[in-house]
Amino acid sequence: MFLKNCWYVAAWGHEVAGDGLLSRKILGEQVLLYRQRNGEAAALIDRCSHRFAPLSKGRREGDYVRCMYHGLVFNADGLCVEEPGRDQPSDNTSIRSYPLVEKYKMLWIWMGDAQRADPSLIPDCHWQDDPAWRSIPAYIHYEADYRLIMDNQLDFSHLSFVHENTLGGSRKIAETVPTLEAIEGGIRLTRWYLNEPEIAPYLRGVVDLKGAIDRWHIYDWFTGGNVLNMDSGSAPAGTGAPQGHRAPQSLQFHATQCTTPEDEHCSHFFWTYAHNFNLNDPAFTKALAGRIEIGFVEDREMIEAQQKVVDVSGDDKMAFISVDLGLTQGRRLLNRAIAAEQAAN
Amino acid sequence: MFLKNCWYVAAWGHEVAGDGLLSRKILGEQVLLYRQRNGEAAALIDRCSHRFAPLSKGRREGDYVRCMYHGLVFNADGLCVEEPGRDQPSDNTSIRSYPLVEKYKMLWIWMGDAQRADPSLIPDCHWQDDPAWRSIPAYIHYEADYRLIMDNQLDFSHLSFVHENTLGGSRKIAETVPTLEAIEGGIRLTRWYLNEPEIAPYLRGVVDLKGAIDRWHIYDWFTGGNVLNMDSGSAPAGTGAPQGHRAPQSLQFHATQCTTPEDEHCSHFFWTYAHNFNLNDPAFTKALAGRIEIGFVEDREMIEAQQKVVDVSGDDKMAFISVDLGLTQGRRLLNRAIAAEQAAN
Amino acid sequence: MFLKNCWYVAAWGHEVAGDGLLSRKILGEQVLLYRQRNGEAAALIDRCSHRFAPLSKGRREGDYVRCMYHGLVFNADGLCVEEPGRDQPSDNTSIRSYPLVEKYKMLWIWMGDAQRADPSLIPDCHWQDDPAWRSIPAYIHYEADYRLIMDNQLDFSHLSFVHENTLGGSRKIAETVPTLEAIEGGIRLTRWYLNEPEIAPYLRGVVDLKGAIDRWHIYDWFTGGNVLNMDSGSAPAGTGAPQGHRAPQSLQFHATQCTTPEDEHCSHFFWTYAHNFNLNDPAFTKALAGRIEIGFVEDREMIEAQQKVVDVSGDDKMAFISVDLGLTQGRRLLNRAIAAEQAAN
Repeated sequence: MFLKNCWYVAAWGHEVAGDGLLSRKILGEQVLLYRQRNGEAAALIDRCSHRFAPLSKGRREGDYVRCMYHGLVFNADGLCVEEPGRDQPSDNTSIRSYPLVEKYKMLWIWMGDAQRADPSLIPDCHWQDDPAWRSIPAYIHYEADYRLIMDNQLDFSHLSFVHENTLGGSRKIAETVPTLEAIEGGIRLTRWYLNEPEIAPYLRGVVDLKGAIDRWHIYDWFTGGNVLNMDSGSAPAGTGAPQGHRAPQSLQFHATQCTTPEDEHCSHFFWTYAHNFNLNDPAFTKALAGRIEIGFVEDREMIEAQQKVVDVSGDDKMAFISVDLGLTQGRRLLNRAIAAEQAAN
Repeated sequence: MFLKNCWYVAAWGHEVAGDGLLSRKILGEQVLLYRQRNGEAAALIDRCSHRFAPLSKGRREGDYVRCMYHGLVFNADGLCVEEPGRDQPSDNTSIRSYPLVEKYKMLWIWMGDAQRADPSLIPDCHWQDDPAWRSIPAYIHYEADYRLIMDNQLDFSHLSFVHENTLGGSRKIAETVPTLEAIEGGIRLTRWYLNEPEIAPYLRGVVDLKGAIDRWHIYDWFTGGNVLNMDSGSAPAGTGAPQGHRAPQSLQFHATQCTTPEDEHCSHFFWTYAHNFNLNDPAFTKALAGRIEIGFVEDREMIEAQQKVVDVSGDDKMAFISVDLGLTQGRRLLNRAIAAEQAAN
Repeated sequence: MFLKNCWYVAAWGHEVAGDGLLSRKILGEQVLLYRQRNGEAAALIDRCSHRFAPLSKGRREGDYVRCMYHGLVFNADGLCVEEPGRDQPSDNTSIRSYPLVEKYKMLWIWMGDAQRADPSLIPDCHWQDDPAWRSIPAYIHYEADYRLIMDNQLDFSHLSFVHENTLGGSRKIAETVPTLEAIEGGIRLTRWYLNEPEIAPYLRGVVDLKGAIDRWHIYDWFTGGNVLNMDSGSAPAGTGAPQGHRAPQSLQFHATQCTTPEDEHCSHFFWTYAHNFNLNDPAFTKALAGRIEIGFVEDREMIEAQQKVVDVSGDDKMAFISVDLGLTQGRRLLNRAIAAEQAAN
């Protein structure tokens, strides 16, 4: 069960280059991504109308894609513009195209009703191409339902356990009850951990902030497209960070995580972890991304293992505990949006 | 859905040799092939009647096969001729045998009603053991429904695209409408491409024919056993090839392609590509087979990719286009034959 | 279909050691095995009550196991004893524990009604830790239904064929009708082969008994837990072995084989092959186990091949032959026990 009328990240812009034909399954549909001569990216169903050969085994010809089984040619709108052996293409030879927008270095696709594809609905992820921030586009493939990833994002307590020696480092994270607010299209979760003895393990050795800190996690999660924007950081303890004052030694980060269902069983996870200091130090940007990736691999290992257990658990009920506040609310918003969409059809 | 009352190629004769026990799935049934002491090949179900151990893990003993789980022995008719610990075998210990005929270097099996197994129904494939021709027996395994292979054989336009740089080499192939005739048990498709600038890419470097040519493809396809016999070749342009005159410099080939369903998902593809010149040049025979194999691997890659798309396309309809004349007629003959067979049961 | 109210071997005791968390599927349920600080082993469902993460990705903390997703802690009875961020664990956070007994170097688990878990029902396997015998604990994983393994154990004739050059070595084994008796909880099968020309192939080169022998196989098979205890051996011919006199040169063995269903498709096979001579010669114990393992691998290859054929044979009926006496009776006992258990529920 997927929400269809929203923008999902289909790919990083750099994944679709030159003559390349990128085939990726999204919401269970195999999609072909390619660029036209002017650089504009396009998305078609990766299936020739004729005998269902995959167009990704074809070739780009200018603004078009040719199926290399029997030679039919399609434009970026899915219209068949050439059928070998015939002046005009036969009936029913056009194929589906999908609205596609390139923004924040990402290709955003709309899998639902194309009439409703409004680019202004794409959540703000400007940190990814804002010159005041630095990050590296990254991707992880998950053998897990996107909702288990969403649960993980909307829960903070796992940082103390899954990421005990990396992104977490403090039992206080699991013990702090977050503030939950509704925002346009989603929810915001806020947690502050004041006067912690030191920075998180993943930062040790790559930044210079010593001594006690005030630490925060502020997550904005958007139902459409499963987009998570996280404002997080550490400031010297008692320098007023919770009141909005960010002392110069503060470490500020902005993470973006977009989870696109591949199908009922697997997911695409696109992420960045931007910093607004050390802007001219690519080695730092790379080292930071490497540390974060270790944490995300910890998540994936746990979630994929969890998925296997869920798969064989039938109708057995999970127990709800106190830290489930965020994920419960997230699931509620998602289920409500899916139900509304299906009721409208 | 398979046609059962017809001869299918089960194996090349040379695949069943000495004490060997060859197990191969045909039309979803696991068949054991072996030779008796006089060299005559036999086909049994590859399953002991007793505890269903595969006989292919047993051993040939003279004209018989012994199951090496509990020792039962079967003759070439499937009769149990020995049961350890008992003078006479118990009831119900016999197993199924299949009519099997060795002809044209191939073992032909009849999977349907044995009463109807008439060897005269085997299509003529004499080019494979006629001393006036040379070829090398070859085999390709397909992860695809046999009907997608049949579609490919009855369509010519793919030569221009799948085999653009090998077996095809001319856009004219896709653009030429074939002549279609009914023949006994199947259909014949004929195409001529006159005054083509040069021979096909796969022949370049292995034959000497220079300059413009008249080129032809004449395919005889038989519903029973999915047998394709192809007469093809190239003659110097304007030397009367279409009228039946084959100038001495002409290159004539005869291909045989037999597709046997392994099960609903996979297929066996047995092929040769015979030539009637350079008869005493085994290096040429080998080089030619190697070039053809490259083309057949191109087909397999496309068809297996197509199969994966078909598998997830549910009831979606393919578009019919002008080049589908041959495959449409072939499918119609096949469906009609299967329906007739099932109605008779 | 499994018998649930009986003791199955879950693991060898040595497989669960130190801080280790052993996850093993038993009767289709994923079970976690670990040891408490006093060395006592415990068995829990390998699934946290909260979000179904596997506890085997957690860690042992003293007598407890902590889930490393969100930090819940469980004791050996499955009670949740800690929930991060809360003084008392939430409702419904406890998980299933299973009765577990360590005996004869094995961990015996009870998958059915815990109220009925009576340790006195564990069959006698004392040869495995009796100082008068020597053996090496061993394990084989089977991709086969446990009942096909049971069939194999209750049939002797396969020794002449599957183990022609190892454990068998005589056609007489297949030709001898066994004596079958009912015993408490199972059946006993007895076969004697008098005046055989020599010892079995697997013993050649590792023992000194020359010349003609009297050989025997006495199998006690217990329905509960699929436990087979075999008394077997070889004595110099005519020295009174069948009458109970065991001449000093006799070779006596005691094999224990416990088959635990992993699920409907696979099985765990725990075995020893104890000898009561050469007690201080570990090289002999090892060599003997190596020879036996070769035989058990022969069994596995045949049974796994048989399973694949059974899987595609639908409702086809196996033929019953004269050597099926033991397996027929064993299957009857098992089916009756399962039916009785299900009727009681």
